[in-house]
Amino acid sequence: MTPDRSDVEGGSSSKRIAILGAGSIGLYYGARLALAGNRVRFLVRSDRDAIETRGIVLREGGKVETVFPANAFSSAEEVGPVDLVFVTLKTTANFELPRLLKPLLHAQTAVVTLQNGLGNEDFLATLVPPENVLGGLCFIASMRTAPGEVTCFQRGSVTLGERAAAAGDRTRAIGALFEQAGIPCRVVDRLDDARWRKLIWNIPFNGLSIAAGGIPTDAICANPALVAEVRALMSEVLTAAAALGYVIPEEFAQKQFEVTPGMGAYQPSSLVDFLAKRPVEVDPIWGEPLRRAHAAGAKVPRMEMLYALLKQLVGETRA
Amino acid sequence: MTPDRSDVEGGSSSKRIAILGAGSIGLYYGARLALAGNRVRFLVRSDRDAIETRGIVLREGGKVETVFPANAFSSAEEVGPVDLVFVTLKTTANFELPRLLKPLLHAQTAVVTLQNGLGNEDFLATLVPPENVLGGLCFIASMRTAPGEVTCFQRGSVTLGERAAAAGDRTRAIGALFEQAGIPCRVVDRLDDARWRKLIWNIPFNGLSIAAGGIPTDAICANPALVAEVRALMSEVLTAAAALGYVIPEEFAQKQFEVTPGMGAYQPSSLVDFLAKRPVEVDPIWGEPLRRAHAAGAKVPRMEMLYALLKQLVGETRA
Repeated sequence: MTPDRSDVEGGSSSKRIAILGAGSIGLYYGARLALAGNRVRFLVRSDRDAIETRGIVLREGGKVETVFPANAFSSAEEVGPVDLVFVTLKTTANFELPRLLKPLLHAQTAVVTLQNGLGNEDFLATLVPPENVLGGLCFIASMRTAPGEVTCFQRGSVTLGERAAAAGDRTRAIGALFEQAGIPCRVVDRLDDARWRKLIWNIPFNGLSIAAGGIPTDAICANPALVAEVRALMSEVLTAAAALGYVIPEEFAQKQFEVTPGMGAYQPSSLVDFLAKRPVEVDPIWGEPLRRAHAAGAKVPRMEMLYALLKQLVGETRA
Repeated sequence: MTPDRSDVEGGSSSKRIAILGAGSIGLYYGARLALAGNRVRFLVRSDRDAIETRGIVLREGGKVETVFPANAFSSAEEVGPVDLVFVTLKTTANFELPRLLKPLLHAQTAVVTLQNGLGNEDFLATLVPPENVLGGLCFIASMRTAPGEVTCFQRGSVTLGERAAAAGDRTRAIGALFEQAGIPCRVVDRLDDARWRKLIWNIPFNGLSIAAGGIPTDAICANPALVAEVRALMSEVLTAAAALGYVIPEEFAQKQFEVTPGMGAYQPSSLVDFLAKRPVEVDPIWGEPLRRAHAAGAKVPRMEMLYALLKQLVGETRA
């Protein structure tokens, strides 16, 4: 007999958490939070049956842990109102958020996007009270290895911040949830500063890996002309960030560049999506940064060309 | 019985002409010059047997004309010294020129490159006396439709000039050869000015057609972000040309842009080569213009990125 769902959730004093999306990020953090005793509900699609049957399987460091039974639902209405939502959908599915979020909200529900790139917090702020929106950056190497199953190669850390405010008690409380679940979490006052720092690597490497023909990072690093483009793109990202008030030292970009050869034949996530003919997150990684750069008056010709090529290459040919 | 080769050439007072390369350009102009009564010798490779059997077949405007017998040879030594050489090889075969040209030369042999892009005249000037080098631009729509057979869709014209001097008697005499063969020929004092004008179209459209995923020009014109890149690249080419002393009016670029939608689903020659997995002429169309732009201190970030991407996409990954 399946225990009643309320039995398998944590104590009633703990926050109710919903995970929106069952990719590797949603499965991993959701499972870690559940294993740490939180009341976690997963809104999933195709993984529903697998999770119903064998729970969520988490492979990490040679160990296998299972969340069973896991609270997986296939409609937002079944999940119902929660205190905290982690949005882990691909951004290319953001058009579904208005419909999916509504049933999960009460007046104080905090919504944290763990999605890539820029603009996701602002989009959420059009759907929920703006002051309830937070964002996080996931530094993790993980992969969804089967329905309901995630394999984590490198746990890394999360960087967490409010959409448009310094960190406060709520931010630190959510950070503590991660920490209690074994995930190092850095709470920051300026989330977008952290997002721009991540883009210093993502814009050139994710972009050129697709535009240069679907090649991993070691092939980029082996071509001096492409290496020059990586550096020039990094420089444009620094320029754009600075124009927006995020002053990131040159040495940070240099470091980002230097760690890359050691990553071997790494396929950036965008390249993995591209090669699998899945939607690529062009807008948050290249489109929105470009729009913000333009708004700040920064000259970023390479970012413009890369964005135009990527839109065509992934099949988004409209303006 | 095959007539002796000397019988099928023109009168002994006319110039001896060699055509180096039997692509569509070499076949077409060579055949036109031969049909006009000139002594033309073709240095060919794989087309030798076809030409031996049925001559050179020229299809144009619903008519079929044949040069038979045609003087086709498979080694430069057999061709021997001539007065005028037209180089119509793909530039990607330029490394063969030292070997191929030597047997064709006497002290006054004029060598005219009809190849694409920049740098071919300068390369020839390292192989023959620099003052004997000329160049021509071919505005023609033609296709090699079988071995030894060329189909011409639009005869267009040739623009002809000395490598590094104003037009003189020799230039006009060669121009007259074209005109007598029915090919309009414009003789110019500044060849590179004409070459830069051609690059205003070739650099963006040939380049983006490959870099944006192997698409014809109508697909470029249908994507506003790519159209913006075309315009920005044209602007960079104008800037580079101006820095080198070739002042091309903005309206010329605008005109080049405007004629493109009317070309329909046109595949630029570089794209045709790319899709057929043949070598692409990256260096004369993007590499050498970029080097000259840099030498003149012009800022051309888009040309840089496009060149880097193209080198990777066509498999030239070295610096």
